[in-house]
Amino acid sequence: MKSLVESARRVGSPLVVGLDPTPGRLPNEILARAATPAEAVHEFCGGILEAVSEDVAAVKIQSAYFERLGVPGTEIYAALIQASHDLGLPVIADVKRGDIGATATAYAEAHLRVFGAECVTVNPYMGADAVLPFLEEARRLERGGGAFVLVATSNPSSSEIQSIGEPPVYERAARLVAELSSDGDYPDAGAVVGVTHPEIGRRVRELLPDTLFLAPGYGAQGGGASDVRALLDARGGGVLVNSSRSILYAYENSNADYSQAAQDAARRTREELQAAGVL
Amino acid sequence: MKSLVESARRVGSPLVVGLDPTPGRLPNEILARAATPAEAVHEFCGGILEAVSEDVAAVKIQSAYFERLGVPGTEIYAALIQASHDLGLPVIADVKRGDIGATATAYAEAHLRVFGAECVTVNPYMGADAVLPFLEEARRLERGGGAFVLVATSNPSSSEIQSIGEPPVYERAARLVAELSSDGDYPDAGAVVGVTHPEIGRRVRELLPDTLFLAPGYGAQGGGASDVRALLDARGGGVLVNSSRSILYAYENSNADYSQAAQDAARRTREELQAAGVL
Repeated sequence: MKSLVESARRVGSPLVVGLDPTPGRLPNEILARAATPAEAVHEFCGGILEAVSEDVAAVKIQSAYFERLGVPGTEIYAALIQASHDLGLPVIADVKRGDIGATATAYAEAHLRVFGAECVTVNPYMGADAVLPFLEEARRLERGGGAFVLVATSNPSSSEIQSIGEPPVYERAARLVAELSSDGDYPDAGAVVGVTHPEIGRRVRELLPDTLFLAPGYGAQGGGASDVRALLDARGGGVLVNSSRSILYAYENSNADYSQAAQDAARRTREELQAAGVL
Repeated sequence: MKSLVESARRVGSPLVVGLDPTPGRLPNEILARAATPAEAVHEFCGGILEAVSEDVAAVKIQSAYFERLGVPGTEIYAALIQASHDLGLPVIADVKRGDIGATATAYAEAHLRVFGAECVTVNPYMGADAVLPFLEEARRLERGGGAFVLVATSNPSSSEIQSIGEPPVYERAARLVAELSSDGDYPDAGAVVGVTHPEIGRRVRELLPDTLFLAPGYGAQGGGASDVRALLDARGGGVLVNSSRSILYAYENSNADYSQAAQDAARRTREELQAAGVL
């Protein structure tokens, strides 16, 4: 996680911009001049990255939206990781993969080595076998990689599986993070903890006092800056807050062009988080 | 699931061949003439498909091994789905995706619409939100698609999360399958149930009497034909058994070439399953 933490400090922002582009929501000016939806997505995301680069610690690329573009989507996925690096920003490949050991190794090599992201998101349903290969691959990255394990997610049906048992599944997932993580200044296993259930977030923080959290659910999904405070570590840090749609599509509620609107939205979000004492 | 069930009946086999190719294990003759590892994987998998097409009900393509090949991997993934269809075989995209609703929709469109697989595998950790979009997309396929939800997997650490609680997580995942599935002759939500824990498999079958199971763990992972019997429905069917490495790499323990060895292994496995009364 070293690359993420150092980037957050350098930029002075706990904000992560999430790229999950839907062709139908792109600005008309881009759709009009692009030959294909994939080309439009590429131009749009490139413009977003340049617009927000001074206000974000990292870029989270949501694999699904590029897989949906077919073969050109994979090219754009690779190009956007490169473009993020060119802007000095580390990348979280939001892939939420989870599979038996040999397959998890293949996924880890794909996203952390071949495509070159610094971090990935990982699903713990299959247990340690499905998580460890990502950490092993991340440990090979000199610039400091890591894997964020889904612990308590932000979506409406998250509790159906995650709250089963006493102690509940999310506590076992948190223990998995603690067991598998390296020690040191930058523990390499992180946790995905949504901001939409602050009481669960507070409990997960008790179990993982030194872990870096990736917090989705801010903005479009309903979480606010005060909800993020429940996730902070003892020093008032340790949380990266993701915002995707509220930044990408800020132009829909603005008179500015899409890149200016995205920059304004990212800056405003960063300031909101700072005002609430995050980082 | 109609396409899978009808194919199993037509071929007279409950066997699914899994494609999870590792370049380092491919035959030297293929590696020697291929310009790139990706090209070698493509030729190898194409040869396997032709060799086993008369003994398998479907093809399961494990996405990780194609993602690891970068951009050419996506091209090969698409080409192998097409090649399977050309041989009359439906495809299960073994992607084990799971994400919030809008993202799950993007994944579903990617694999069932853009790449054109009939079925996918899905991870239930995030609850119904993460599963339903796959079923909704599958319902649009005229030939009859579906989604196999991970219920009880075959890997060594599967119980860490899946056995938490009373009733345990795997029972809740099974209920999710029951709740979300369509009715009718071919319920469209299936379950991934490993053959390595027959006592769990028996319990999941009680909860899901009419559901199609996809059973990994046969062969290389240690499960045998008698273990599959615990998963059968009341009519002695309802299970598709996946075998990957034992077929793909059968040539390593044979004097035959890789395609002949794969054909022999597929035929032997099919006969083993039939002798044990599966399908």
